[in-house]
Amino acid sequence: MADFVQNLQSEITAAVEEAEGPDGGRFFRDSWVRKEGGVGISCIMQDGKVFEKAGVNISIIASKAPEQMLAHMRARKREGIDKGPYNMFVAGISLVLHPHNPMAPTVHANYRYFELVEEGGDHTKPVAWWFGGGCDLTPSYLFEEDAVHFHKVIKQACDKHDAGYYPKFKKWCDEYFDVKHRGERRGIGGIFFDDLENKDPNEIFEFVHDCGHSFVEQYMPILEKRKDLPYTEENKRWQQMRRGRYVEFNLVHDRGTKFGLATPGVRIESVLMSLPLKARWEYGHTPEPGTPEAKLLEVLKNPKDWV
Amino acid sequence: MADFVQNLQSEITAAVEEAEGPDGGRFFRDSWVRKEGGVGISCIMQDGKVFEKAGVNISIIASKAPEQMLAHMRARKREGIDKGPYNMFVAGISLVLHPHNPMAPTVHANYRYFELVEEGGDHTKPVAWWFGGGCDLTPSYLFEEDAVHFHKVIKQACDKHDAGYYPKFKKWCDEYFDVKHRGERRGIGGIFFDDLENKDPNEIFEFVHDCGHSFVEQYMPILEKRKDLPYTEENKRWQQMRRGRYVEFNLVHDRGTKFGLATPGVRIESVLMSLPLKARWEYGHTPEPGTPEAKLLEVLKNPKDWV
Repeated sequence: MADFVQNLQSEITAAVEEAEGPDGGRFFRDSWVRKEGGVGISCIMQDGKVFEKAGVNISIIASKAPEQMLAHMRARKREGIDKGPYNMFVAGISLVLHPHNPMAPTVHANYRYFELVEEGGDHTKPVAWWFGGGCDLTPSYLFEEDAVHFHKVIKQACDKHDAGYYPKFKKWCDEYFDVKHRGERRGIGGIFFDDLENKDPNEIFEFVHDCGHSFVEQYMPILEKRKDLPYTEENKRWQQMRRGRYVEFNLVHDRGTKFGLATPGVRIESVLMSLPLKARWEYGHTPEPGTPEAKLLEVLKNPKDWV
Repeated sequence: MADFVQNLQSEITAAVEEAEGPDGGRFFRDSWVRKEGGVGISCIMQDGKVFEKAGVNISIIASKAPEQMLAHMRARKREGIDKGPYNMFVAGISLVLHPHNPMAPTVHANYRYFELVEEGGDHTKPVAWWFGGGCDLTPSYLFEEDAVHFHKVIKQACDKHDAGYYPKFKKWCDEYFDVKHRGERRGIGGIFFDDLENKDPNEIFEFVHDCGHSFVEQYMPILEKRKDLPYTEENKRWQQMRRGRYVEFNLVHDRGTKFGLATPGVRIESVLMSLPLKARWEYGHTPEPGTPEAKLLEVLKNPKDWV
C-alpha cells in the first residue's frame, strides 16, 4: 500500500505536469515528518496554465493509535477494539484538481488503508483493518459524454473485481457527496466506499490498486477536451460560485475534513489543501430555467445513472 | 424589540448607502414570510462602490416552538423547559459588511431576543427568555487606532448599563471567535454575550438597544478613514485570504450558522449571507516576519486589551 500510494502520486503528478505543457506549472513538493511516526509528501501547484490549484498528497503513518481515534472507532460500533494500547498503520493518497477553464471539471480521488495491531503484536494478525476511498467528478458545466466516460472507466475497474462494487459504491458516492443544506450533490458522482473488509485483504488491495491506476484514464481525456474551450466571464463567475459550494461541502459535511479540523496538532494545510484557490458567494443566485447552469443543477438535485 | 430591529436596520442601511455616495450601491430588499409564522427582511448589496458585499437582515418570528429547538435548549441544560407545546417569539438583527478596500475592516453585529411561552399562556410570564448578541471587527490590516476606537465606543455603550459588561463580554468575544484549527481569532474582537437574563428584561433591552444604536458610531468613522486608502494587488490578495479564514470560521465553528445549516426548511441564503463575495485559499501562505500581515496575525494569535 505504501508503494502503491507513492507510485500513484508519481503517475498522477506526471500526468498533470504533462497537461500543463513544457512551460506550464510544476508541482511544489512539501515533505513532512510526523514526530509521532510517519511521513507525508504534499505535491501542490498553484496558478498553473491549466490548473488554478492542484494537490496530490500521500501520507504513510506508523505510530501508536491515539485514544481519541480509538474512541471514534468504538463509537462507529466496531467490535473488538478495546482500550489498547494499539499501533496503527495508515497509508493513503488524496488529490483534488481544480482547472482554470470553467468547462473542465474539478476531480477528487482518495484511497486509503488502515490497520490496527496490538502493541508488540503480529502485523499478519491485525485487530482491525479496512480500505476506503473513491473518486468523483465536479463539473461547473455538464457534458454528458464526460460523465459517461468517467463512470465507464471507474465501472470497468470495479467490474474486474466484483460485479456488485460499482452499483453499490456509485450509490454510496451520491449519498455521501450530498450538500444537504443546498439539496444538491457536490458533483456528478463516481464511487465511494469505506470499511471495506469483506474479502481477503490482498484481493481488496488489488481492487483499490486498479481504481487508483485508472485515474489518469478517467480524468485526463476529459481535461484534454475541455481545457482550451472558449468561455465567457459569466461562465467563470458561475464556476467560482460552484467552487463556493465545494468549500461548503468540504467544511460543513466532509467527514475527513471535519475529523482533521478537530484533531489537535494536525497539519492544517494538508487538511485544507482540497479548497479551491478562489470561491464566490452571491446572494440568492438562481440560474434561468433552460440554461446550461440550470441543467447542471437538475442533475445535482437528481443524480443519474450514467452507465 | 421588533421595533428596535426594524429601526436599527433602517439606520444602518441608510449609513451604508450614504457611505456608498450618490452614485454608489443600493440595498436590495428581499422580504420573506415564514409559513409557520414570522417575517424577515434581508437587505443585501453586492459589488457596490465601497462594499464588496453587505447584508443587514432582520427576522421577527412568532410561532410554535419546534421540538428540535426545545431538545437543543434542554441539551444546553436550561431548567424548566418541558416537552411543551410552547410558542416562541424571536426578534433579531444580523449584519455583515465586507468593504472592497483591504485597509477597511469587515464588521459584524447581531442582536436578538428569544422568548418561550406556554401555548395559550401569558406573554408577561414566559417560561424562558434571554437576550444575546455582540459586534466584532475583522481587519486584514491592523490600524491600532481603529481597534481602540471600535472598542471605546462599544465599551461606552456597555458602561452606561453595567461596569461589568464590557470586560466580561470582550473576553467572551475573544473566546467565541476562535478559529481553533488555525490558532487565530477571527478578528480583533468586540463584545459577545448570550443567555443574558440576569436583570429585569426592560433593563437588558435598554442595554441591547444602546449597543445596537452605537454601531454607526463604532464603524463608520473607521470606514471613512480607510475606504479610499491606496493599496496594492498584494494587499488585495491578503484580504482575500483573510476572507477565506472568515468562511472557515463561519462554516466550521459559528454556532448560529451550524444551527441554521442543520435546520430543515431554513432559508439558506439568509444563513449564508455572512459569507464574503470572494475568498481565496493559498497553500501554506506565511507572511514574512515584521510585515503588516505578520503584525495582524500576532494580534489574532494573542488578543489584546484595546481600552
